[in-house]
Amino acid sequence: MGCYRYKVNPKDVDFRGLMTVSALCDCVLQSAGEDADFGGFGVRNLQEHDATWVLSRLALETERVLGEHEEFSVTTWVESLDRIFTTRHHRVCDAKGDVVARATTQWSMINRTTRRLISLDWLGGCHTVDEKIGIERPAKLKPITDATSRETHAVRYSDIDFNGHTNTTRYFDWMFDMVELKRMEKGRVARLDANFLRESRYGDSVSLMMNTTECMDAFQTVLADNVIMSALVKWSLD
Amino acid sequence: MGCYRYKVNPKDVDFRGLMTVSALCDCVLQSAGEDADFGGFGVRNLQEHDATWVLSRLALETERVLGEHEEFSVTTWVESLDRIFTTRHHRVCDAKGDVVARATTQWSMINRTTRRLISLDWLGGCHTVDEKIGIERPAKLKPITDATSRETHAVRYSDIDFNGHTNTTRYFDWMFDMVELKRMEKGRVARLDANFLRESRYGDSVSLMMNTTECMDAFQTVLADNVIMSALVKWSLD
Repeated sequence: MGCYRYKVNPKDVDFRGLMTVSALCDCVLQSAGEDADFGGFGVRNLQEHDATWVLSRLALETERVLGEHEEFSVTTWVESLDRIFTTRHHRVCDAKGDVVARATTQWSMINRTTRRLISLDWLGGCHTVDEKIGIERPAKLKPITDATSRETHAVRYSDIDFNGHTNTTRYFDWMFDMVELKRMEKGRVARLDANFLRESRYGDSVSLMMNTTECMDAFQTVLADNVIMSALVKWSLD
Repeated sequence: MGCYRYKVNPKDVDFRGLMTVSALCDCVLQSAGEDADFGGFGVRNLQEHDATWVLSRLALETERVLGEHEEFSVTTWVESLDRIFTTRHHRVCDAKGDVVARATTQWSMINRTTRRLISLDWLGGCHTVDEKIGIERPAKLKPITDATSRETHAVRYSDIDFNGHTNTTRYFDWMFDMVELKRMEKGRVARLDANFLRESRYGDSVSLMMNTTECMDAFQTVLADNVIMSALVKWSLD
């Protein structure tokens, strides 16, 4: 297990002064990167093999939303590893040691040139920890059939990362930008499930769709008739 | 003088694996915030007086663009303070201690409710350091008369910060998203001047304009016929 420390910086909070889900997910993903680096199978190690990690699914549950300037830690471990996927858990604790969020991420490895999956067999020696995180695994989401709102977005310079594709957290920014401000004011994301199916790249024009109901919002990003990302948010409106 | 340490995280880099100007400016602004906190006149101290700092002008010159995972420091000090403006300098050094960028920021203080300027006289005791930074002060920019490209943007949840207005670095994101990718691939921002004249808020529809020439790009953001932000980028195309 690795434990990585972060702080809620001014750019990580929204108009309420509370940490955005995008910023929290970014730290969760960063903890995976730092822990993989520590284990010798990080993105920089994989570059020698022309390989990289891609996020396939994510689940996040929050108990409390962190505020600006708060310090927190993410403890992370790999629970399992099969031929195609590896499952990692993340426990987010505040400065008092109380759990404020839990997440599970599922990763696969691709060849950077062909963009095709690579078997994880050669990571056989990777250390796994047989400990659950206490939330359900990331769900496999169904496509949205009746969107209540739609927009289009052109993928731009600020959207793309070192892999040349849209950064994971940008999908979350696009999603929460579609939600009514009233819900963002009062709501807490009790649970978020996300599936990442394909990449989008610079210049792509993607369609963003949302289906909103009383305490749940479903989202999907579509590129050339293919769903490339989908997500489901369950709100706590207390 | 205060010295604050940062690291170039995965989300801070672009498709080249190099730190974006937005991310660098964010750290420059963060160093101002941390140093003001340390001096007892930070945003949290000002809240008791229903006041807050607003950035009025910025100048940035870069020598080298930092890469992912690099550690760096920002040394910052207040050089001068008059009734309305305070001028702060920022020296950005890499892990070897070499200067990679220099910046000057000019700030004023507003009442959070009326959004009007407040005299800085009561900060009389603020410690100033009579040391130059070695770059020209932020320029006062002229309006663009002939835009070579234009777009509109609706200000959304992910754009706004704790002050309820568009976050400074989002203006930079919008700007660099308008620049041709070829220029972003090869260019380094030799100098950036930016003027922040008015705020934009959630739901505002702003016009983004750019005028591009061989080695310079001028930008402005317009809201209801008023220029609210303008910037000039001088590129080094080596």
